[in-house]
Amino acid sequence: MDIVLFTDFGSSDIYVGQVKSVLHRLAPQAAVIDLANDLPPFNVRAAAHLLDALKDSFPEGSVFLCVVDPGVGTDRGTVVLQADRRWYVGPDNGLLSVVAARAAQARLSSILWRPAELSNSFHGRDLFAPVAARIAADGLPPGHLRPLRALAESFGADDLEEIIYIDHYGNACTGIRAAHARRDGVLLLGEERIYGARVFGDVPRGTALWHVNSHGLVEIASSLGSAAQVLGLRIGDRVNWVG
Amino acid sequence: MDIVLFTDFGSSDIYVGQVKSVLHRLAPQAAVIDLANDLPPFNVRAAAHLLDALKDSFPEGSVFLCVVDPGVGTDRGTVVLQADRRWYVGPDNGLLSVVAARAAQARLSSILWRPAELSNSFHGRDLFAPVAARIAADGLPPGHLRPLRALAESFGADDLEEIIYIDHYGNACTGIRAAHARRDGVLLLGEERIYGARVFGDVPRGTALWHVNSHGLVEIASSLGSAAQVLGLRIGDRVNWVG
Amino acid sequence: MDIVLFTDFGSSDIYVGQVKSVLHRLAPQAAVIDLANDLPPFNVRAAAHLLDALKDSFPEGSVFLCVVDPGVGTDRGTVVLQADRRWYVGPDNGLLSVVAARAAQARLSSILWRPAELSNSFHGRDLFAPVAARIAADGLPPGHLRPLRALAESFGADDLEEIIYIDHYGNACTGIRAAHARRDGVLLLGEERIYGARVFGDVPRGTALWHVNSHGLVEIASSLGSAAQVLGLRIGDRVNWVG
Repeated sequence: MDIVLFTDFGSSDIYVGQVKSVLHRLAPQAAVIDLANDLPPFNVRAAAHLLDALKDSFPEGSVFLCVVDPGVGTDRGTVVLQADRRWYVGPDNGLLSVVAARAAQARLSSILWRPAELSNSFHGRDLFAPVAARIAADGLPPGHLRPLRALAESFGADDLEEIIYIDHYGNACTGIRAAHARRDGVLLLGEERIYGARVFGDVPRGTALWHVNSHGLVEIASSLGSAAQVLGLRIGDRVNWVG
Repeated sequence: MDIVLFTDFGSSDIYVGQVKSVLHRLAPQAAVIDLANDLPPFNVRAAAHLLDALKDSFPEGSVFLCVVDPGVGTDRGTVVLQADRRWYVGPDNGLLSVVAARAAQARLSSILWRPAELSNSFHGRDLFAPVAARIAADGLPPGHLRPLRALAESFGADDLEEIIYIDHYGNACTGIRAAHARRDGVLLLGEERIYGARVFGDVPRGTALWHVNSHGLVEIASSLGSAAQVLGLRIGDRVNWVG
Repeated sequence: MDIVLFTDFGSSDIYVGQVKSVLHRLAPQAAVIDLANDLPPFNVRAAAHLLDALKDSFPEGSVFLCVVDPGVGTDRGTVVLQADRRWYVGPDNGLLSVVAARAAQARLSSILWRPAELSNSFHGRDLFAPVAARIAADGLPPGHLRPLRALAESFGADDLEEIIYIDHYGNACTGIRAAHARRDGVLLLGEERIYGARVFGDVPRGTALWHVNSHGLVEIASSLGSAAQVLGLRIGDRVNWVG
C-alpha cells in the first residue's frame, strides 16, 4: 500500500527525509508519495478541507500520513481514521475531521502505542510515521489502537467558503465543492466580483475567473497570471456567492 | 525505463504527488526522477532549450514527462516525440521542438487516447502521465498514437542568446551551447562585459564570469555570490558576444 | 544500503535529479533519501555541525552524499569517511570533519578514482555520486581510494555556539548539543534573553523559548510563530549562556 505525505514539514527542510527513513525501514515495499509538505503551518482547518478534496486522487488502500500539528508535545490526542477504504494517521486536532464527517463509512481509533524514544517536537517521525508504516506493511499489531467514539476536534462536513490554498501559479482554491458551485454564479471577494469560465484559455489574458479545479473545488484563477497577486488574496479570505 | 519529470508544477505544491501516484500505479517498476518541477511558469521557449541541454544526463530509454502548458484546456495538440532513443511526452506548444529539431533521428506522434475523466486544467495528471507511464511500462497499445508530420509550434534548432534559467545560487544559464562558445570571447549583458574563466575558483570573490556549465551551456556565474543578483539578471535577458 | 543526500543543490533546481539518475543507474537497489538539499550555500561549518546531529536518524550502513562545495573545480581534496558504521562521501573542506572528530571509530580515505568525464562545476553528479553509489551497491573496487591520515580542513569536535540552521517555521537551531544544554540556563542572543521550556505548548503564544530539538541540539523557537523573524536571527549569529 502506498503512503501519502500530507504535512507542513517543508519540502526544503530537514524533516521529510527523516520521516522517509522511518517509513522505508518499516515498510520497505511501500511507495511513499509527497502529496504536500508545504501546507501553511498551523492552519489545520484549511488543510482538513484540502485533504478531503485530494484524497480521491489516490488509490484505495492508501495510507495518508497527515501532520499539521501546532499542539505537538501537548496532550492532544493521536488518531487513526479508516474511511472509505483509505487510512489516515495524524493528530486529533481537526485535521482528519472533514474526511471523517463526509465519509460513507468511517472508523476511528486512538493510538495507544508509544515509541521507546519520543521527542517533544517531532511526532511525525517518532509516532505517526511508524504507525503509518506498519499499517501499510502488514497492519498494526493488536493493542496498538483503541476504538474512539468521536474526534475531540471537528470542523464538520460543510463546505468552507474561504480561500484554503494558494498555489505557486497564484491560483486560489476555496473550500467550496463542485456540487455547490453555482453555474453562472458570481463570486464575491471583498469588493471584487469574479465570473465563472470553463478554462483559462476562454478569457482574456490577466482576467480573473472562477472554475472548478482538478480536485473538484471552486478556484479563483487568472489567465496567464497570478490571481492571488492581482486580487491580493490570502488563505482564510472569505468568498461568497453574489445574490 | 525511467520517467523524468520536467514541469512547472512547483515542487512545493500539490500537483507532483498526484502525477506520481498515476505513474506508480501504471508503471510500478519505473523509477521516477524529478529533474525540474519549478520551471518558470508559462515560459515555453526557455524550457525547450533547457530540456535539450539536460536530456543527455539521462540514460537512453528514458521517458520525459514535459509539462509547461499555459494552453491547457484549449485545443493545442498533445504529442509523443521519440528522438535518439529517448521519449518525450507533452503539449504541442514548442516545448519539445528544440529537442526534435536537433535530433539525429526523430519520430513525432499525436496522442489520440483520452482518459475517461479529463480535467480542464491538469492534463499532466490525467493525460500525459498515463501516456508516459504506459510507454515506460510496456509500450502504448496500438491506436493510442497517430503519426504526426510536424509540430504545430517550433522554436527551431538554433541557440537562444538569452538567459534561459537562473538557479538558486544565482548562476544564469544561457541558451548558447558549448560548441558556439567563443574561447576568450567576451559576453555583453546590457552595458556589462563578462569575461570567461574555467572555474569559479579562478577569479576573485564576487567577480562575474562566464563558463561552460555542467550541461554544456554558457552560464554567467559569480565566485561565491549570486551573479543574477549582482547583475540584476532575469530570464529572457539578451546575451551577446562582443565583436 | 540507503543513500542520504545532504547538499546545497537546491530542492527546486535541476541538480538533484541529475544526481539521482546516476545513483539509480549504479545502485538500483538503494533507497535514496533527501535529508537536505537546501543547506545554506557556501556555509560549510554550519553544515558540518548539522550533519553530525542528523546522522543518527539514519540506520547503520547508510551512505551520506555530502556536498556543500564552494571550492569545486579547485584542487581541494575529495574524501570518503567511514565512521561508526556509516559512510560519508564529500569534499575535504571541513564538511565531514565534525563527524570525523567526534566518532568513536573513523577511517579516512582520499578518492583517487576520476570519471571519464568530469565537469568543472558539478562533482556532486560526476564524482561523488558514482562513489557513493558504488559503496552502497557492492563496495568500491580496489584502487579507488587511498588511506588518508587526516583531513586537510577540520572544525574540530567542539560545539558551535552559533545559529547553524533556520527552518521554515522560523526555529533557529544552534550547534550546542543536549549534553551541554544547561537545565534552567538562559541563552543570550545579542541583547535578548531566552528561557528554556520543554515544549512549545508550555509558553504563551508568540513567546520565544529554547528547547532541545528532535535531533538533540539546543534550538530557539517561538510558540505558534517564527522565532527567527521575531528576533531577527540569522545563520552565524552567536549564542551564549548567561553567567
